[in-house]
Amino acid sequence: MLVSPKEGILDPQGSAVRGALEHLGFGVSNARVGRLVDLEIDAGSESEARRLVEEMCEKLLANPLIEGYEIEVAPE
Amino acid sequence: MLVSPKEGILDPQGSAVRGALEHLGFGVSNARVGRLVDLEIDAGSESEARRLVEEMCEKLLANPLIEGYEIEVAPE
Repeated sequence: MLVSPKEGILDPQGSAVRGALEHLGFGVSNARVGRLVDLEIDAGSESEARRLVEEMCEKLLANPLIEGYEIEVAPE
Repeated sequence: MLVSPKEGILDPQGSAVRGALEHLGFGVSNARVGRLVDLEIDAGSESEARRLVEEMCEKLLANPLIEGYEIEVAPE
């Protein structure tokens, strides 16, 4: 799953990355930094896996006030 | 672009996430944490954009000793 700052929310990490890249001579008009969390879980189905990860996001992995998240399920 | 710890490299952030999720009652057999960096840049073509981001990764965004990266280009 991917967690990223919501539109319109200040992203200090992104600003720092943008500043550092410009300092190195790269032109960057915008930079946002988020997290990638790769989880291996046991679930009976894809929809069950998605439901579980949604619950994990709400409870721990994302801050719903300032972050959005996107879940991708890859069966093994 | 996505930066994630290479296979076989210890991932303390991932271990912390796994521990916290188990503490909440979720069964997780593995967790890895990486970064998502979303960049807006001007480039003449997709291959030029990819080349630029590759250079940014090598110079700043990833630590090639312990991290791998994956670049996805989305033209606007």
